[in-house]
Amino acid sequence: MRLARARVPQVDDDRGDAGGDDVRGVVLAGERAVALPEVTPGSADPLLDLLRAGADLGEVARAALAAADAPVYDRAALAVLAPLRRPGKIVAIGLNYRDHTAETGLAAPSEPLTFAKYPSSIAGPGEPIVVPAAITTSVDWEAELAVVVGRPCGPARPGTLADVAAYTVGNDVSARDLQFADTQWTRGKSLDTFCPLGPELVTPDEVGDPQALRIWTTVNGATMQDATTADMIFDVATLLRHLTATVTLEAGDVVLTGTPPGVGGFRTPPVYLADGDVVTVGVERVGELTNPVRHV
Amino acid sequence: MRLARARVPQVDDDRGDAGGDDVRGVVLAGERAVALPEVTPGSADPLLDLLRAGADLGEVARAALAAADAPVYDRAALAVLAPLRRPGKIVAIGLNYRDHTAETGLAAPSEPLTFAKYPSSIAGPGEPIVVPAAITTSVDWEAELAVVVGRPCGPARPGTLADVAAYTVGNDVSARDLQFADTQWTRGKSLDTFCPLGPELVTPDEVGDPQALRIWTTVNGATMQDATTADMIFDVATLLRHLTATVTLEAGDVVLTGTPPGVGGFRTPPVYLADGDVVTVGVERVGELTNPVRHV
Repeated sequence: MRLARARVPQVDDDRGDAGGDDVRGVVLAGERAVALPEVTPGSADPLLDLLRAGADLGEVARAALAAADAPVYDRAALAVLAPLRRPGKIVAIGLNYRDHTAETGLAAPSEPLTFAKYPSSIAGPGEPIVVPAAITTSVDWEAELAVVVGRPCGPARPGTLADVAAYTVGNDVSARDLQFADTQWTRGKSLDTFCPLGPELVTPDEVGDPQALRIWTTVNGATMQDATTADMIFDVATLLRHLTATVTLEAGDVVLTGTPPGVGGFRTPPVYLADGDVVTVGVERVGELTNPVRHV
Repeated sequence: MRLARARVPQVDDDRGDAGGDDVRGVVLAGERAVALPEVTPGSADPLLDLLRAGADLGEVARAALAAADAPVYDRAALAVLAPLRRPGKIVAIGLNYRDHTAETGLAAPSEPLTFAKYPSSIAGPGEPIVVPAAITTSVDWEAELAVVVGRPCGPARPGTLADVAAYTVGNDVSARDLQFADTQWTRGKSLDTFCPLGPELVTPDEVGDPQALRIWTTVNGATMQDATTADMIFDVATLLRHLTATVTLEAGDVVLTGTPPGVGGFRTPPVYLADGDVVTVGVERVGELTNPVRHV
């Protein structure tokens, strides 16, 4: 099943929230999109609400498709948003593809290297990546397979692939100058809009083996990254086991699993995202996520 | 005003949620605690809800104290929890006191050094700091003045002291071995329970100048840190201006402003938190936060 968070044409109902658009969770079915039940009517984060309520996304989606009374929209009339607006945390993994590690000149980690992106950096499909040019001009792309946690797991019960609710695509946008000047990477990777995410949450049955997916980036149509998740140093199952040794992963938390070779900052000469560029990151069977770049 | 999140004796009301304790936001008044209005009845994070709804904590507290019908509890009957359960993010500042920077042997930063602690690491007053002894045995304390954001601020409008909703106390508990092995500090500082926070949210009018507060740590009663927030390299106003150049601080977000000298890991020989230790961090006029340490 493929689920999205979307701004939908307003339906005249008796909820008394007329005015403005509705944000709904939907399941996509061909040219149609069927609304999912709301945990909290009017919530801006309906898919996160479902995850936190313990819902199985596949079951909820199947039930909505079978329901006679669920609102149905024209898929073309939807504005798809980031599938999760403010998850509890975004855990990111650095240097997790061998050839990317080599291109950075950094030592390959002996265990997964984790850092954080602030959830406030999330942007949706089509939303601009906003670059404050007075602060950074070396902004880079990183295509990543994003794992969305379903069942909470942590020190008391190590995480496994069975705890994954869905996959989506993330772009770990990185201001290389800030990242390396700070030594700590979070600021340079957490500017507002620096975590494009989406477009859809795709349930694991649709994705199959997470270590057998093509992963790519194009900038203005030119291929910049083109690899396979088979080249991860630590696979998704290992990442989940490692992370949950110290940290509880809660429903809706996002794990960004690292980027393959081909980022811009380690090219000779380096290539950074310019005003007006259009960057697309994609993962086979999961989706493709496109964002324009705007320098301000 | 001093506000707390607390487990309160259950009041028989018509909300239909009988069974188990209630978690409420309260304002403290001598031996009494008066319940604050609930944005979402039954929410586990009532003070965060108020902040996200745009409430001024002082006004809400004054109104509750004046209301004839607000539930009133014996303060002694409350179990005080961390004031915020899952804020949107915890931004932490490293090396922000000159003498602490000197003790670490690291270079003093030319601008604030930021990193993240995952919100899932929050623990409340009295809750154990749980140390997984197979993973780390070099767990250290860091007393910090914690700033809680009220009014959202970011690149479009830089943050100022007027955007602070409240202050509280944080302990930036740090597994020194993981922190330095990883180079990225987030994992070693984000183990579950590694961010004790509280006990109260204290409105700025009660605190006065945030740069004129004693700040201290005791371990089993022995003083380990004893300094003043006047010794911050970058004061709270500067931190807010710096952070908001790249990141939107949202209502309820927490900024940990760095720790003074006297941590354990840079002593000769180093001193780390042992099973059964009791660590207290305090900030003048803000509060004192005590947690036992449990190795598992």
